[in-house]
Amino acid sequence: MAFIGWIAAALTTFSFLPQAIKTVKEKNTSGISLGMYSMFTAGVFLWMVYGFIIGDIPLMLSNIVTFLFASIVLTMKLKYK
Amino acid sequence: MAFIGWIAAALTTFSFLPQAIKTVKEKNTSGISLGMYSMFTAGVFLWMVYGFIIGDIPLMLSNIVTFLFASIVLTMKLKYK
Repeated sequence: MAFIGWIAAALTTFSFLPQAIKTVKEKNTSGISLGMYSMFTAGVFLWMVYGFIIGDIPLMLSNIVTFLFASIVLTMKLKYK
Repeated sequence: MAFIGWIAAALTTFSFLPQAIKTVKEKNTSGISLGMYSMFTAGVFLWMVYGFIIGDIPLMLSNIVTFLFASIVLTMKLKYK
């Protein structure tokens, strides 16, 4: 049943790509919550660590990429309040 | 090392709470990506299923709540384009 983990990983990981692209392009961060992206980026980092500890590949890989995309949105939010 | 999973779960889960509150309150969804929340909500649902299959409690519980909060943001985005 690992394929469900891979589909879940693909969806949640790549969902942050259109958000990152939109935010970089439009620089419109007024509707985006700073609290959310601060907590989320920290949380995704810990999921990455947790995936590594329990040896779960989909959990690990997806959170590395999600961390990257979420960091972009967080950086834009901090820059264009 | 399960506590790392629990902290990760708490952070990523509750990160969507300030976003849901902000979006419900301000109805400002112009900076929020519809593509992101469509993919993300579907993905979180599958993470929930995957957590159930592999018997991972933090993965399962956190995604139930994240699904709820993400659904609120998605509904607001669909309502206030």
